[in-house]
Amino acid sequence: MQEKTNIGIDEALELVQNAFVASGLNQQSAQSVARALVMAEAEGQVGHGFSRVGDYIAQMKSGKINAEATPFVVSRSPSYLHVSADNGFAYPALDFAVEQAVTMAETTGCVAIAVSQSNHCGTLASHVEKLAMQGMIGLMVANTPAAIAPWGGNKPLYGTNPIAFAAPRAVQDPLVIDLSLSVVARGKVMNAKKTGQTIPEGWALDKDGQSTTDPSAALDGGTMVPIGEAKGTALALMVEILAASLTGANTSADMPSFFAPSGPSANAGQFLIAIKPNDMGGPMMRIEALLNDIAETPGARLPGVRRIEARNHALKEGLYVPSQYVADIQAMLS
Amino acid sequence: MQEKTNIGIDEALELVQNAFVASGLNQQSAQSVARALVMAEAEGQVGHGFSRVGDYIAQMKSGKINAEATPFVVSRSPSYLHVSADNGFAYPALDFAVEQAVTMAETTGCVAIAVSQSNHCGTLASHVEKLAMQGMIGLMVANTPAAIAPWGGNKPLYGTNPIAFAAPRAVQDPLVIDLSLSVVARGKVMNAKKTGQTIPEGWALDKDGQSTTDPSAALDGGTMVPIGEAKGTALALMVEILAASLTGANTSADMPSFFAPSGPSANAGQFLIAIKPNDMGGPMMRIEALLNDIAETPGARLPGVRRIEARNHALKEGLYVPSQYVADIQAMLS
Repeated sequence: MQEKTNIGIDEALELVQNAFVASGLNQQSAQSVARALVMAEAEGQVGHGFSRVGDYIAQMKSGKINAEATPFVVSRSPSYLHVSADNGFAYPALDFAVEQAVTMAETTGCVAIAVSQSNHCGTLASHVEKLAMQGMIGLMVANTPAAIAPWGGNKPLYGTNPIAFAAPRAVQDPLVIDLSLSVVARGKVMNAKKTGQTIPEGWALDKDGQSTTDPSAALDGGTMVPIGEAKGTALALMVEILAASLTGANTSADMPSFFAPSGPSANAGQFLIAIKPNDMGGPMMRIEALLNDIAETPGARLPGVRRIEARNHALKEGLYVPSQYVADIQAMLS
Repeated sequence: MQEKTNIGIDEALELVQNAFVASGLNQQSAQSVARALVMAEAEGQVGHGFSRVGDYIAQMKSGKINAEATPFVVSRSPSYLHVSADNGFAYPALDFAVEQAVTMAETTGCVAIAVSQSNHCGTLASHVEKLAMQGMIGLMVANTPAAIAPWGGNKPLYGTNPIAFAAPRAVQDPLVIDLSLSVVARGKVMNAKKTGQTIPEGWALDKDGQSTTDPSAALDGGTMVPIGEAKGTALALMVEILAASLTGANTSADMPSFFAPSGPSANAGQFLIAIKPNDMGGPMMRIEALLNDIAETPGARLPGVRRIEARNHALKEGLYVPSQYVADIQAMLS
C-alpha cells in the first residue's frame, strides 16, 4: 500500500512553487505551474498533479521545456489572437490567453485564441473554468501525442484530443465539461498491465487494429478505441485542425511524449474560444433551468460534479499525496 | 419495391421551389429551402431531402412555420450576432447567418452567430461547408427535439444535437464533418419497427433506461443511446447551452416535433462559429498534409467522402427520387 501525506493546499502550492524556482524557473511561471498541478491533484486528476513534478523538472533541466520562456503574441486581430508559449510550460501561456480572451470578448463578443509552441496543459477543465468564472462561455481543445487511429485504420494519428466546455452559473461554480475522445484513458490500460490484468473488450486495439483484451498488445503499437467509432475520430480530426493546423503546432503524430525527460520540444497546440453571453433571452437563467432539469433526473448527474466535490473536500481537509512525491521535493529543496 | 424517378438537379430545384412558391412562400425563401432539400437528397441524406417537402408545406399552411418570415438581427456586436429566423424556415436565416459570419470574420478573425426562432435545418454539413467555401473554419451545433437522456437517467432531455465542422482545403472540396450524438439515427429504429426486425444492443434504451432490442420499446417513451455514454451526453449538454440557452430558443425537451403538421412553432436554435485562419504556420498546407496522412492510412477514410461522391454523381446523373414525391409536387402545381 502506498503511504500518503496530508498536506494543506496553501502549503502544497508553496512547496511545488519552490521546487520549480529552485530548478531555475521564474516566480510567476512557477506559481502558474504549481497552481495547475496542485489544483489537478485536489480535483482528483492525479495524472495531472504531483506525479508530474519530477517529469517537468527533468524536462526543464534537459531543455526540452524552455525554463526561460516568456509567452508572446505572434499575431493579433480584434477577435483572434495567436500566442506562443515559447516552448515553455503551457500554464503561463494559457493564463495569458485566458486573460486576453476575457478582455477581448468583453468588447467584441467572441474571440479565438490559438496557442502554439506549448506543452502538456493538464486538465482543460481548469482553463475553461477560468473563462466561465469571468462570465464567459469557454470552449477549448488540445492535441496530445498520438494514441488513436483514424477509424478503420491501425496507425495512430490522433491524440486522445480532449474537448472542454464551461458555462457560468447564476450562483454555483461554473458548469465544466472536460472529456477525451478515447473510451477510457490510456492510464487505465497501463495500470492493467502493471497489475497483470486483462482489459475489457472495447477499450483498445492491437497493432493490427483488432480488438484486444491484452494490455501489452494495446500498448505495444496498439491504439485506444475512440468514443462513437468513426464519430470519435471525426471529432479528433476537428481538434487536430484547430489545435495543430491552425496554430502551427505539431500534429499528434509528430508530437514527442509528454513524459520523456529529454528530446525535442513537444510544440503542442491549444485552441480556446470565449463567447460573451448577451442579454437577450436571459441566458444565465436559461442555463440554470436546464441544469436543474438534469440534476433532478433520477440516476443522472451533472458533468464535473465529482471534480467540484473533490476540490471542496481538499480545500477543507487538504490533499493526500503519495509521500514519495513530497519527500522527492523536500530533498530537492534541502 | 419503391418506384423512382430520375430528375436532374436543376429541374429538381425548380420543381421544389415552385411547390413552395405555389404554397405562398416568397421566391427568395423558396429558393433557399429548395436548394437545401435538393442538395441533401443529392448527398444521400434522404431524410433531409424530398421526403420533407410535404411536411414543410403542411407546417406552412397550419402556421406552425411562418410563411411570411423575414430573418432579422436581434442584436449585434463586432464578433457576435443574434439572428431571429422569425419562426420561418431555418435555411434563409442560416444563409443570412453564413453571409454575415464571413463578412464579420474577415474583419475580426472570429465570430459567433446565434440563431433562434428557427426550425429544422437539415444537414449541418451544408451550412458549415458554405463557410469553408469562403475560406473560413466553420463550427456549428443545433438542438433538436428530445431523444437522449442524461447518462444514467431515462427522461429524454437532449436532442441528437448534431455537431458539424468544416475546413477549407487547398484544391479539393472542403473537409466537412457532421455527426449526431446518438450511436445511430432514430430513423434506423423506426425502419426496424416498420420491417418487423429487432435492433442490435447498444442502439436504444426503453422507457426505464434499460437496453432494448425491441424497436417499439425504444420508440414508446424510450431514448437513443449517446456515443461514449456520459461523454456523449456531456457533449449534448454543451450543444444545448450554445443552441438553446444562449440563443433563447427552446430546449430540446420543450421542442415540438419537426414532423407534426401543426401546433406551436419549434423555436429551434442553431449556433455557428466562423474562424478566419491567419497566415502564420501556413494552416492550409498543414491541413492538407494532415488529411493526406489520414487518406493514406489503409482501412481509414476522410469524413464526408461518401457525401461528396454522392453529390458529384447526382450532379452528373441526376437524382433518383421516389416517384410519389415527384407526383405529389406535380399535383400541387397543376
